[in-house]
Amino acid sequence: MAEAALDDLIEALRRLPGVGAKSAQRMAFHLLQHDRDGARRLAQALQQAVQRMHHCARCHTFTEAEVCATCRDPQRDARLLCVVETPADQAALERSGSFKGLYFVLMGRLSPLDGVGLADIGASQLLQRAADGGVQEVILATGFSAEGEATAHALGEALRTRGLKVTRLARGVPVGSELEYVDLGTIAHALADRR
Amino acid sequence: MAEAALDDLIEALRRLPGVGAKSAQRMAFHLLQHDRDGARRLAQALQQAVQRMHHCARCHTFTEAEVCATCRDPQRDARLLCVVETPADQAALERSGSFKGLYFVLMGRLSPLDGVGLADIGASQLLQRAADGGVQEVILATGFSAEGEATAHALGEALRTRGLKVTRLARGVPVGSELEYVDLGTIAHALADRR
Repeated sequence: MAEAALDDLIEALRRLPGVGAKSAQRMAFHLLQHDRDGARRLAQALQQAVQRMHHCARCHTFTEAEVCATCRDPQRDARLLCVVETPADQAALERSGSFKGLYFVLMGRLSPLDGVGLADIGASQLLQRAADGGVQEVILATGFSAEGEATAHALGEALRTRGLKVTRLARGVPVGSELEYVDLGTIAHALADRR
Repeated sequence: MAEAALDDLIEALRRLPGVGAKSAQRMAFHLLQHDRDGARRLAQALQQAVQRMHHCARCHTFTEAEVCATCRDPQRDARLLCVVETPADQAALERSGSFKGLYFVLMGRLSPLDGVGLADIGASQLLQRAADGGVQEVILATGFSAEGEATAHALGEALRTRGLKVTRLARGVPVGSELEYVDLGTIAHALADRR
């Protein structure tokens, strides 16, 4: 089409995860044709977020403040530190309403194939954070994918050598599921970890 | 998470077509964690596009100029006017390399259920454009969906009553396909329109 502003927009939208050439084109046409106000708001939101959001000095999640609201909350139990991969995982744990401790957000997980090593997930910050004297137990709540398990294993080793108590979320049959439809690996774990 | 700048960004991303709550969150985290440069570029591209792109005075597609490059091209055959739904459809026709006339881009199609009527697809601009004296044939190249067909029908009627020659893209068996796998409606049309 040789319209620079339109091509630039489509190119910029393609950098979003999960957006290919066709989707980017559709998004650009939609914004220009039906939602110019939405385009302006998105531009502003992007600028504001890039400018204001940085990492919490204690738990590494995104925050506008020096230390995030969760870390500042005096009601939380500072003896428990839960390690999660992403802010979305943290939000899921919060929604469950069953954890009142503090968090450390890795903002990723070990993935040697993608070149993501211990330094990229803030392992040294985690070790420093966990050794602040107040933490009595570190709960590894990374995912149960291969990469999440590898991350939990590597971090667990490092934390244990510093004398910290380390636990992992339980594996087992999800609430509400019929055994018949649960995968075999999960059933094997649920049997092994029976209580 | 109660972080205003992050929530605003997720909310703004959700307004993109095909982006739900989870995708918007993933996009926001990705941009903030891995691609702040991409976020800045997207913000700028959005602002530039909203500011610069408007509709071509002749064919109604998006352009930065008063009249788009295609409409300005003296090499194009001004006797043929091809009506398409979107700039993407126009681009597909251009890629085929088999049309040298001019275009009119509806920027949509009739869809009574969504409240899209003749005025929303610029029907009166099309009638005016087609009646400029130079156009000898209007080719309706809207899609072959129910809505595309309804659009072609309505526009065809209006154009014919003004004494214009109106044609429609041929329906038939796609190039490279085995008859066995072609749907019955297409086969029926290919038989009826045999040549």
